[in-house]
Amino acid sequence: MSEHEGKPITCQAAVAWEPKAPLTIEQVIVDPPKAGEVRVRIDFTSICHTDAYTLSGQDPEGVFPCILGHEGAGVVESIGEGVTSVSVGDHVIPLYTPECRECKFCKSGKTNLCQKIRDTQGRGVMPDGTTRFHSAATGKPIYHYMGTSTFSQYTVLPEISIAVINKSAPLDKICLLGCGIPTGFGAVTKTAKVEEGATIAVFGCGAIGLSVIQGAKYAKASKIIAIDLNSEKFKLAAQFGATDFVNPLDYPGTPIQQVIVDKFDGGVDYSFECSGGNTSVMRSALECCHKGWGESIIISVAGAGQEISTRPFMLVTGRVWKGSAFGGVKGRTDLPGFVEMYLDGQLKVDEFITHRMKLDEINTGFKLQHDGLCIRPSVSMF
Amino acid sequence: MSEHEGKPITCQAAVAWEPKAPLTIEQVIVDPPKAGEVRVRIDFTSICHTDAYTLSGQDPEGVFPCILGHEGAGVVESIGEGVTSVSVGDHVIPLYTPECRECKFCKSGKTNLCQKIRDTQGRGVMPDGTTRFHSAATGKPIYHYMGTSTFSQYTVLPEISIAVINKSAPLDKICLLGCGIPTGFGAVTKTAKVEEGATIAVFGCGAIGLSVIQGAKYAKASKIIAIDLNSEKFKLAAQFGATDFVNPLDYPGTPIQQVIVDKFDGGVDYSFECSGGNTSVMRSALECCHKGWGESIIISVAGAGQEISTRPFMLVTGRVWKGSAFGGVKGRTDLPGFVEMYLDGQLKVDEFITHRMKLDEINTGFKLQHDGLCIRPSVSMF
Ligand SMILES: [Zn+2]
Ligand SMILES: [Zn+2]
Ligand SMILES: [Zn+2]
Ligand SMILES: [Zn+2]
Repeated sequence: MSEHEGKPITCQAAVAWEPKAPLTIEQVIVDPPKAGEVRVRIDFTSICHTDAYTLSGQDPEGVFPCILGHEGAGVVESIGEGVTSVSVGDHVIPLYTPECRECKFCKSGKTNLCQKIRDTQGRGVMPDGTTRFHSAATGKPIYHYMGTSTFSQYTVLPEISIAVINKSAPLDKICLLGCGIPTGFGAVTKTAKVEEGATIAVFGCGAIGLSVIQGAKYAKASKIIAIDLNSEKFKLAAQFGATDFVNPLDYPGTPIQQVIVDKFDGGVDYSFECSGGNTSVMRSALECCHKGWGESIIISVAGAGQEISTRPFMLVTGRVWKGSAFGGVKGRTDLPGFVEMYLDGQLKVDEFITHRMKLDEINTGFKLQHDGLCIRPSVSMF
Repeated sequence: MSEHEGKPITCQAAVAWEPKAPLTIEQVIVDPPKAGEVRVRIDFTSICHTDAYTLSGQDPEGVFPCILGHEGAGVVESIGEGVTSVSVGDHVIPLYTPECRECKFCKSGKTNLCQKIRDTQGRGVMPDGTTRFHSAATGKPIYHYMGTSTFSQYTVLPEISIAVINKSAPLDKICLLGCGIPTGFGAVTKTAKVEEGATIAVFGCGAIGLSVIQGAKYAKASKIIAIDLNSEKFKLAAQFGATDFVNPLDYPGTPIQQVIVDKFDGGVDYSFECSGGNTSVMRSALECCHKGWGESIIISVAGAGQEISTRPFMLVTGRVWKGSAFGGVKGRTDLPGFVEMYLDGQLKVDEFITHRMKLDEINTGFKLQHDGLCIRPSVSMF
């Protein structure tokens, strides 16, 4: 049992007071978990494109002030009333896509998009409509983010938003399993269900794109085409399993979808858009698919008001346009298995970590990612 | 054997000399079939939206002068060298989607879009690059249309573009199996693979929409929502199996997708766009699908340059956007089975036929369909 059980904890967090401003590292008060909630000590977090997206002010659901962060890992400090699936001391990964196992969505067998706490999570509060975070200096309430808020040394999560994982897994590494890696890997294995021998195109070789490549290799795709405007990224893409490399800048005047169709026998069986929200890349990804059967999976989140377009002929002639959120992964059920795969050497995680830093350097982490110099930082919270 | 075997036949046809002009009924010369080709006496034809679309001049592939028509049925008059799967006297339905059984597409097991003769068919000629039709008056060549040209008393087809059917089937009825009925029915059973208990929305209650309704009933859908701007169409929709009826005009100011989501528990499992090419209806059809798993199937052909759009969020949250051509039906393999279903009373066909006419009244048929007064005419060629 924690010495703080049932009491507030004062700790360090990176607070986003307003869009576009740097995060401030400061003391926050983290209330004890209410019924059905769990308080977790976050040992490590990483930074994902979506954190930057919300901080940029483009996210229509962004609520400020808040504590960002949704790729983290830690240890359960205390549990609220009625919590049964999580115990103090468990090693856990917070889930921004919960899994209640009882809503229409969870029971459908067709989606991982549990909607049990969708409304409150979108408004930056716990399921009871209130926040557990306050400024230590002023007492002002601070909102949650994606139901996770891993940029705080302690955070409070609904029980359904927690995956309990193997205690032998290193938290500084497997914090990355909170978003990017399952998102890309699962888009291949769960959303697209890529079969052995299929051909794949991946648009964008950041963390998600590399995870797609890793997933495609795992699925035994016969051809994995990495596409990026920065050819320097192809080295890492090759390490993850990419077999072919296309830089659109090498084909001025020709739409990249045409290049792929021409070079690769009419197009690919599956394409994955990991561009970070560029809707014109989403179109290219669809249109580079093979007539008759090619499927394209949108993974990124686009800015508010942005739309995708194509000629309906593209679909009528057999292409399929899909999307994937958190890789179709059901967090409580599937994430422990991802950790086991990592421990068994079947899933690359360490290779994503290009930088290490402390919580008080987190603004540098955002800058490195923005400049494309960093795949993922591992941020030590203590 | 036909008295004309190996010789040209002079017969009546409806010729489209130029876009937007009425068809002229006149004598044409129909050359004998070359190697791999078959000459067919067309006994009955119907008229489909796509004929009108091409005649309107919007079809970028429209080649004039041509003989339109792609929903027909008839009897084999003579066969060319090397033809083995079709015999003189066989009752047949011409296929605008051929089935060669040897191209990459046919062998994929994933699509019905045989590409064996795609290029020549699109250019209005037989696979050897020439036409079999000439004006009897001037000798001017007349192009083929969709590889079928059923508005001629005799037409020439590649062997791979012919489905041989049960001789006991009435040709005046089953000519409709050349396009509309399998297109809608197959979109449900083959493209979407609708499962028992699913909920369905159908946008547009013309021949294709009614066929979708029929397919959904056959698939044991639990709810079949018919959507049309003309409430008079709901009576026939109900006869085909629709269970619910929505006229968007009854909900001024509310997007129809919102109406469907609100009225039907978050949206439908499958939606089918049978609007005749309206891209904004295509969007509504996608967006009325249930979050997490709803799939929308585009069936219509839109005008040149028209595009579909949506927010990528619609796909990322689990909706799927697909298309269907000829209902995913492989003509030579599957169409004989549709005829058997009709003969067994499992497939409505007669109910589509609202008008009967002779070839020389065919322009009236176009007008009736344009005005929405006709589901399908059965046009007697002799
Ligand atoms: Zn993320
Ligand atoms: Zn749920
Ligand atoms: Zn048609
Ligand atoms: Zn073929």
